[in-house]
Amino acid sequence: MSLAARLLTLADRVREPRTVYAHCDIPCGIYDPEQARIEAESCYKIIQKYHDSDDPVFRDRCLLVKEDRAGLAKEHLYTLWSDHFKPPHVEQFPNVHDTFWQATKQCSQVKRSVELEDAQKLLDLIDEIDDMWKKTGGLESTRVAGRPGN
Amino acid sequence: MSLAARLLTLADRVREPRTVYAHCDIPCGIYDPEQARIEAESCYKIIQKYHDSDDPVFRDRCLLVKEDRAGLAKEHLYTLWSDHFKPPHVEQFPNVHDTFWQATKQCSQVKRSVELEDAQKLLDLIDEIDDMWKKTGGLESTRVAGRPGN
Amino acid sequence: MSLAARLLTLADRVREPRTVYAHCDIPCGIYDPEQARIEAESCYKIIQKYHDSDDPVFRDRCLLVKEDRAGLAKEHLYTLWSDHFKPPHVEQFPNVHDTFWQATKQCSQVKRSVELEDAQKLLDLIDEIDDMWKKTGGLESTRVAGRPGN
Amino acid sequence: MSLAARLLTLADRVREPRTVYAHCDIPCGIYDPEQARIEAESCYKIIQKYHDSDDPVFRDRCLLVKEDRAGLAKEHLYTLWSDHFKPPHVEQFPNVHDTFWQATKQCSQVKRSVELEDAQKLLDLIDEIDDMWKKTGGLESTRVAGRPGN
Amino acid sequence: MSLAARLLTLADRVREPRTVYAHCDIPCGIYDPEQARIEAESCYKIIQKYHDSDDPVFRDRCLLVKEDRAGLAKEHLYTLWSDHFKPPHVEQFPNVHDTFWQATKQCSQVKRSVELEDAQKLLDLIDEIDDMWKKTGGLESTRVAGRPGN
Amino acid sequence: MSLAARLLTLADRVREPRTVYAHCDIPCGIYDPEQARIEAESCYKIIQKYHDSDDPVFRDRCLLVKEDRAGLAKEHLYTLWSDHFKPPHVEQFPNVHDTFWQATKQCSQVKRSVELEDAQKLLDLIDEIDDMWKKTGGLESTRVAGRPGN
Repeated sequence: MSLAARLLTLADRVREPRTVYAHCDIPCGIYDPEQARIEAESCYKIIQKYHDSDDPVFRDRCLLVKEDRAGLAKEHLYTLWSDHFKPPHVEQFPNVHDTFWQATKQCSQVKRSVELEDAQKLLDLIDEIDDMWKKTGGLESTRVAGRPGN
Repeated sequence: MSLAARLLTLADRVREPRTVYAHCDIPCGIYDPEQARIEAESCYKIIQKYHDSDDPVFRDRCLLVKEDRAGLAKEHLYTLWSDHFKPPHVEQFPNVHDTFWQATKQCSQVKRSVELEDAQKLLDLIDEIDDMWKKTGGLESTRVAGRPGN
Repeated sequence: MSLAARLLTLADRVREPRTVYAHCDIPCGIYDPEQARIEAESCYKIIQKYHDSDDPVFRDRCLLVKEDRAGLAKEHLYTLWSDHFKPPHVEQFPNVHDTFWQATKQCSQVKRSVELEDAQKLLDLIDEIDDMWKKTGGLESTRVAGRPGN
Repeated sequence: MSLAARLLTLADRVREPRTVYAHCDIPCGIYDPEQARIEAESCYKIIQKYHDSDDPVFRDRCLLVKEDRAGLAKEHLYTLWSDHFKPPHVEQFPNVHDTFWQATKQCSQVKRSVELEDAQKLLDLIDEIDDMWKKTGGLESTRVAGRPGN
Repeated sequence: MSLAARLLTLADRVREPRTVYAHCDIPCGIYDPEQARIEAESCYKIIQKYHDSDDPVFRDRCLLVKEDRAGLAKEHLYTLWSDHFKPPHVEQFPNVHDTFWQATKQCSQVKRSVELEDAQKLLDLIDEIDDMWKKTGGLESTRVAGRPGN
Repeated sequence: MSLAARLLTLADRVREPRTVYAHCDIPCGIYDPEQARIEAESCYKIIQKYHDSDDPVFRDRCLLVKEDRAGLAKEHLYTLWSDHFKPPHVEQFPNVHDTFWQATKQCSQVKRSVELEDAQKLLDLIDEIDDMWKKTGGLESTRVAGRPGN
């Protein structure tokens, strides 16, 4: 095992005692709102390109690919909500449930819509979730080291 | 449309003329090696937890969830390789093909292995790809604004 | 179009004005907690059969099939929560969010567990959701006629 | 284990000796034509809404979502046919194969069509299957207790 | 359009009038039992390798990958059965339904089993289907030219 | 175990020592470019039928089914590239990487295009891969016996 890996392992163990939670994060404990944001950004760009084009084949494809991307954003949000967030987080941020509910409903809206504003609203909601995730220690506790240079 | 959205749209148009490429990035042009990294980090943590446990049910589940996560890392790498990278990038980084080949083969190895070193090697290969992606303008051209505060 | 189909169409139109909701039920408006219940029942039976067997191959397969089935139950619950339930429902049942949160977390627990009690707890939570769904008019408004003889 | 769960377990064991079949229902033995019916009802409603709308974006989405829903109905029918039905059932209902063949072909037809009559014909075929399923003891032997109040 | 492509197009049109069938082959008409055979061969090899190994991690992975492969074989068989085969084929081969029923049931058996004989039996059943497919003109009418040198 | 199966097992063992490769073919070693070709042929036929029709519903469905089929062709190519091909093959055919890169990019092009020529170009690239696969012993080493009469 490389030195880096050993240090990561060690750091991981030192960081431990988070036995506060009834259900630990098994099996992996890796979560990041970036996953939902990347899919939501796809929707944003697809809507832009939809309006920039007048090719009916291209526009049709925009609708079907957006349907899938918005569905993936929804998936990633669901997982964050029920797998990452725990009761103490909800005490700290009582609007967790409502924000996720709005955000997942907004994913459905982005499926239905070709308005850039709808995609922007989804990005804004994901950024609110990102903020709660960071304030509950997300960046430190749910990634392994993370992207170099970040 | 909100002001922010309008500015993003404007910024996006100003950034344009990348007509160098034979195939434009339609339908969305959003790519980020973070997607592969997040799945590879899952594999890393799953292997750690596999060794920390002696519960056979838990260990079995580690193997099956890791199989899926490594498969997702592989998917994200394939997409980056054939959808994001273009001939000029390959001229700039002649080892693009080989690095992706090694990285996707390493995903298969991570499926097979319970050695932390194998997961670390995958993370290292993804970081090499991340570096090439950044040096070919990835961060600026393939995301919409990105995570706030980054 | 058959007479039955025409009557269904008519009944559907008469039943209308549900413009109360911000987001209509497009694209289909068909929801039923039975979908989640059927998958949760699979988990229940798989756990029973896991304990009734001492064949290691069979027991391994129980774990991997249960992982998928509990994942499907989770999916169906997520869809009910963010697509079917609307603000007026949450006013009527303020614990909607918490019940779904518990139920989806219980799906994760059923993935991890081989205790029948965990599967039973999931069934109980789904039955609470079923009750809220019925009391908000679920059976009448979210199915087309439904199973004959029910 | 709760009393209810214990009784269910007991009931399940008492109900047993169905050693008639060469292949037992492992891994779970839970089947219900409701799964196919719910997806077919989605198709029915989508076709209604398709005709009620003149928004081309909405109509496009109807086609792509219907394609998926009809595909899911097909999946559930296939599983019922080859996993639930056993040789003694085919002796009792010699048209089992043909009915499933018609019903799965009708799923393909529903993908292709925007006629309500096609969706209704699929619902009728599923109801024929539901009838055979009930007459071969489906409701009692392939669910765990089932929806409360049914 | 290349000359080869043009000839293929022409050949395709000349070959036409197959208005015998109630449902034409839309959307593509490409079918080949090879798809099911390849997945079934995977199962065969996985079972061989399962027995050649005594590494518990490897053996566990064999079971979970086999589960998926046998599931894919099943999918391909279902599609052949309900999408490719038409009433005149069933008149010509009255045992079409029963052979597919046996073959899809055998896929379930291959999921459950680690006996090479079970995988071989699935291959044999697929070869029977392959024979019926060939005798109903499969090779000529359901592929575009096909693999060079075949 | 049948005699045929025993002979296959024997043949498989005799054929062995291919310890040349860093990563063995676990878990199955079954690969065949036919899988990609069949999906690419679907795309070819769908484009033909798209042009032969003037029904807007049918044409819409062509686009969405083609999107999926071209995606499956891409998947099969990725797997061949990173799982089947090994360093000695790349020494023998230095253009392996580039051919797969072109072919997977062509799958994206086929998603975007309704030109038959684009589908034909994909078929041609797959045939180049088929040729390399055959010249590296594909037909003998990566199938179990194969289709009867081939």
